[in-house]
Amino acid sequence: MRILGIDPGYAILGWGVIDVEGNHFSAVDYGAVTTEAGEDMPDRLKTLYNELMDIIAEYNPDQVSIEELFFNTNNKTAIFVGQARGVAILACVNSGVDIYEYTPLQIKQGLSGYGRADKKQIQQLVKMMLNLREIPKPDDTADALAAAICHGNTANSRKRMEKYR
Amino acid sequence: MRILGIDPGYAILGWGVIDVEGNHFSAVDYGAVTTEAGEDMPDRLKTLYNELMDIIAEYNPDQVSIEELFFNTNNKTAIFVGQARGVAILACVNSGVDIYEYTPLQIKQGLSGYGRADKKQIQQLVKMMLNLREIPKPDDTADALAAAICHGNTANSRKRMEKYR
Repeated sequence: MRILGIDPGYAILGWGVIDVEGNHFSAVDYGAVTTEAGEDMPDRLKTLYNELMDIIAEYNPDQVSIEELFFNTNNKTAIFVGQARGVAILACVNSGVDIYEYTPLQIKQGLSGYGRADKKQIQQLVKMMLNLREIPKPDDTADALAAAICHGNTANSRKRMEKYR
Repeated sequence: MRILGIDPGYAILGWGVIDVEGNHFSAVDYGAVTTEAGEDMPDRLKTLYNELMDIIAEYNPDQVSIEELFFNTNNKTAIFVGQARGVAILACVNSGVDIYEYTPLQIKQGLSGYGRADKKQIQQLVKMMLNLREIPKPDDTADALAAAICHGNTANSRKRMEKYR
């Protein structure tokens, strides 16, 4: 099974494609879509949507895993990131790919078996499980790969997005 | 000039199209795109996007006016509404229409000349200015028309979305 992990954001949208066969995970490709602070927000959303459509067309994932967002910061940031997440979800549904989502805690548990791993430990686990030479940069890309691994790893904690409202 | 006003939401997205000639405003059409709570969120976002694309294609507005969102409620709601707002903006930019946005206070001032009008008074003003027999329902539709009138009425308080980041 091929899984696309997405870490949505409007300045940086991390993505990572992995193949899962049994307990074996391999990285197909990964990266980040970035938009400039100087651009109009509508154009930034269009860039995110179009580039994600291209990524899905190129790698043809069976399923998408995306992190649920929680914010302790202000609501303005939540609206902005929500907008980016909305166009990311639209790119997936318009490409006919099912979307699953996981809380940050579920992703930690899906990788490490417990929920107390810190960000650095999760990144080390991503590197190790995908047999990479380095931790993927930026953090958003590592987070996207973590979401993908979590989905491949934790069929029983899966939460279809249809249950997400 | 033809203006499409949008009040974004994921359960109800209000919209209203008006024509502006000098100081004269007339309603072309208005309504609401609704999605069911029982639907998957990806499908709801797809519905909002597709229906808004159809509305823009049918009425061919010159510009779009959309309300800036502020929330006193929880961040989860802000993310959800942000997602809906993101696909609404994408529909506009993918249709090649410029987007302008106004705060709730600017919309009140743009209609009534002062910022203390309550919701009911704003709805009465929308009805009066567009020479409608009844206040448009649901509230989201009346709010969308208010955003459109504000944009037609307040060229000097215009804030292009390029300044919105």
